Amino acid sequence: MLDARVVDRLRTVLGDRVDTSVESLTSAQADRSGHVSAGPPLAVVCAASIEDVQSVMRIATETRTPVVAQGARTGLAGGANAGPGEIALSLRAMDRVLEVRPDDLLAVVEPGILNGDLNAMLAEHGVWWAPDPASRAISTVGGNIATGAGGLLCAKYGAVRDAVLGLDVVLADGRLLHLGHRSVKGVTGLDLTSLFVGSEGTLGVVVGATLKLRRIVAGETLTIVATFPGAGDAAAGSAAVMAAGVQPAIMELMDATCVSATRAYLGLEPPASGAALLIVQTDGPAARAEAEQVADVLRGLGGDVTLSRDASESEQLLAVRRAVNPALQQSFGTALIEDVSVPRSALPAMFDEIVRVEREYELRIPAFAHAGDGNLHPHFVFSGDQVPDIVWDAADDLFRSALRLGGTLTGEHGIGVLKRRWLADELGDDQWELQRQIKAVFDPLGILNPGKVFAPSH
Amino acid sequence: MLDARVVDRLRTVLGDRVDTSVESLTSAQADRSGHVSAGPPLAVVCAASIEDVQSVMRIATETRTPVVAQGARTGLAGGANAGPGEIALSLRAMDRVLEVRPDDLLAVVEPGILNGDLNAMLAEHGVWWAPDPASRAISTVGGNIATGAGGLLCAKYGAVRDAVLGLDVVLADGRLLHLGHRSVKGVTGLDLTSLFVGSEGTLGVVVGATLKLRRIVAGETLTIVATFPGAGDAAAGSAAVMAAGVQPAIMELMDATCVSATRAYLGLEPPASGAALLIVQTDGPAARAEAEQVADVLRGLGGDVTLSRDASESEQLLAVRRAVNPALQQSFGTALIEDVSVPRSALPAMFDEIVRVEREYELRIPAFAHAGDGNLHPHFVFSGDQVPDIVWDAADDLFRSALRLGGTLTGEHGIGVLKRRWLADELGDDQWELQRQIKAVFDPLGILNPGKVFAPSH
Repeated sequence: MLDARVVDRLRTVLGDRVDTSVESLTSAQADRSGHVSAGPPLAVVCAASIEDVQSVMRIATETRTPVVAQGARTGLAGGANAGPGEIALSLRAMDRVLEVRPDDLLAVVEPGILNGDLNAMLAEHGVWWAPDPASRAISTVGGNIATGAGGLLCAKYGAVRDAVLGLDVVLADGRLLHLGHRSVKGVTGLDLTSLFVGSEGTLGVVVGATLKLRRIVAGETLTIVATFPGAGDAAAGSAAVMAAGVQPAIMELMDATCVSATRAYLGLEPPASGAALLIVQTDGPAARAEAEQVADVLRGLGGDVTLSRDASESEQLLAVRRAVNPALQQSFGTALIEDVSVPRSALPAMFDEIVRVEREYELRIPAFAHAGDGNLHPHFVFSGDQVPDIVWDAADDLFRSALRLGGTLTGEHGIGVLKRRWLADELGDDQWELQRQIKAVFDPLGILNPGKVFAPSH
Repeated sequence: MLDARVVDRLRTVLGDRVDTSVESLTSAQADRSGHVSAGPPLAVVCAASIEDVQSVMRIATETRTPVVAQGARTGLAGGANAGPGEIALSLRAMDRVLEVRPDDLLAVVEPGILNGDLNAMLAEHGVWWAPDPASRAISTVGGNIATGAGGLLCAKYGAVRDAVLGLDVVLADGRLLHLGHRSVKGVTGLDLTSLFVGSEGTLGVVVGATLKLRRIVAGETLTIVATFPGAGDAAAGSAAVMAAGVQPAIMELMDATCVSATRAYLGLEPPASGAALLIVQTDGPAARAEAEQVADVLRGLGGDVTLSRDASESEQLLAVRRAVNPALQQSFGTALIEDVSVPRSALPAMFDEIVRVEREYELRIPAFAHAGDGNLHPHFVFSGDQVPDIVWDAADDLFRSALRLGGTLTGEHGIGVLKRRWLADELGDDQWELQRQIKAVFDPLGILNPGKVFAPSH
């Protein structure tokens, strides 16, 4: 009854931007984490303007209806899944680039633009936005901001946190705020812009962003691919590259299972059994010298090294890495995707821990890593719709290993529903409670993405 | 009576770390902003450990006594001035470097270490911490964090905001929290580390920091000095350098008054009348090519250009810039120091505004700028102890110009007491109120640096 009244109110104000087709409601239940909400939301509202978002939030506040902001739903932690009694608020249609200022190295955009489309447009101006999650062709800038996305280039060029100057946000009650600034520097008041980055829809709805751009890096990009007998050796290789003082643009590690799955997915011939890969790219004015140094270091550790100076061959080598997510899905089906991040020097130890957990729990856990920044993605493979208890236990074990090694639960995917059970373990009860109080300042009625991040699990 | 009891309690717990000498109490009243608090604080507590800080905060909470955290008191906005009825909590003696990890590009430090001392120590490991406020030889890392300090190198290497991975903080009630992480990436929960950067002692006391380091930049550093007929021409020169796509490590602009004051201060011969300076440094593998490009651009605009390839000569050229603060103080005495920041392209327009305000209000406003990032420091010269109303009016006028040009009130000095009257103007009432509510989550009793940042002025 009440639910129907909420939908009526939405329709009165927003007309045909309110979508209650079965297809849309079903789609709104899931991102790409493998998690699906308990049932369809009340409606999907496709906002076309800031005013639309404000209208939705005013109705939500008046009727105490939860709202889940959604972009392209490519998230990997269930953070944007919408369920029963909730409004799914899609920002995908708000995809304009409002301003590009190459001289000030900034762009003002709406949240729904795809990361890849934005960068294609920026390239004409000789600039780019650095965050590059593997999903960059299909994920929105707003979603990147909501999760604090990372990617392959973070160690050298930074994550979303380093690439946002200001945000326009609509609060739970419909008020519009402008956070941050357009200048390089700015310390006027508390840094609420940074607080919103990675807040996963729990504080407000991002309706605009002033992005910090970089000039396109001049010079050649070189790619080094090194094959090692196993992931541990490849991890030792990556640690040696960092210790040598080189700063690769990209340094990716794939274990043997990831390599064979991806080669099969791409229709390439199978690799040598057990072979793990380290893929390194260098760019900028010192690219060649750095690439040769990397190749020397990796050869010295017994790696079988290929150095490519050719741009299209470089991109081909990296394509293997970019295909790993769909390849693992094709080979193994459902998986719980971990996202732990450790200090770079702890990467070999973390790969040892994955092997230990695989054996102890008798599971398959193919893993790859952004080795340049210490961020690993172990895939806990399982069958069926529900994550089995043993997988949760193994993930718990591995997460505690990461913490012991000085690491963190999530490097770039966020907490969502998938990792909320561990949040208080990492933050400690005092900080967890403090963060909940901060959320309550923004969202006193608890209508913004309830059940995500801070909610108790199970 | 109550005040005496507070000091007794402090002495019982902290013994001779409680200092009530007249010299110490008087010193604790002022930073380098020219502002002095209304009278001496109750006591200066020189904390030697985290436990000391926790003890102070527990006593402060029990007795409802305000606490002002202090480092080296080199701030320029009065943010760390302690006054009647307040405890000045000095972190200066907590100055140890607890850990340096060149392989993980991080260091763990106590807050009282001087920025310059830290970098001298890090240099042995081939790494450095990038924030470089002009005060770097005399300001603490904790103070840098509290103000969100910037400096000369920000455009290329980032400000404090970009250089902190985690913080240990003591809350108003004495609890210790560990915020952030040791890994490059990390999005576990809300980013409270960033919220603390630039919070000016209003949320808690920073007792430890995990800093993000950089490798020392290899190769030569070149310095270009260009003399222009006036500050407007020099600003146009800096905009042209940015538009050419070069990324200087440093680009500093000094107007004619700053140049003559500094040359007099350093005992150098006077410059040509009206001459403004643009000082540009390039570094890294492309330093030479970039320096030659910069020199060409500036010559093309009529600049009289010198290019130095010699490291010690480079440092000498930059010494002129580093001496500008004491030089202005020697020449003009008291000044209200502004800190507006605008998008880089607006720098010439902002210098025009300074000239307009100088004429309209019949004031002297010598100004210099971190031209590479659009941050200006106009000095509103006045005589006497109190800022005259006409200076406030002129500063107000100039601040509104900065906002109109897309800028912000403070790029790196913070709000403190000096700029609190304008805070709500920039944030808007809604955001100002929201920020006060966030402060209240951390500090429900209002004992952390009251009267600063958020307090109504006049």
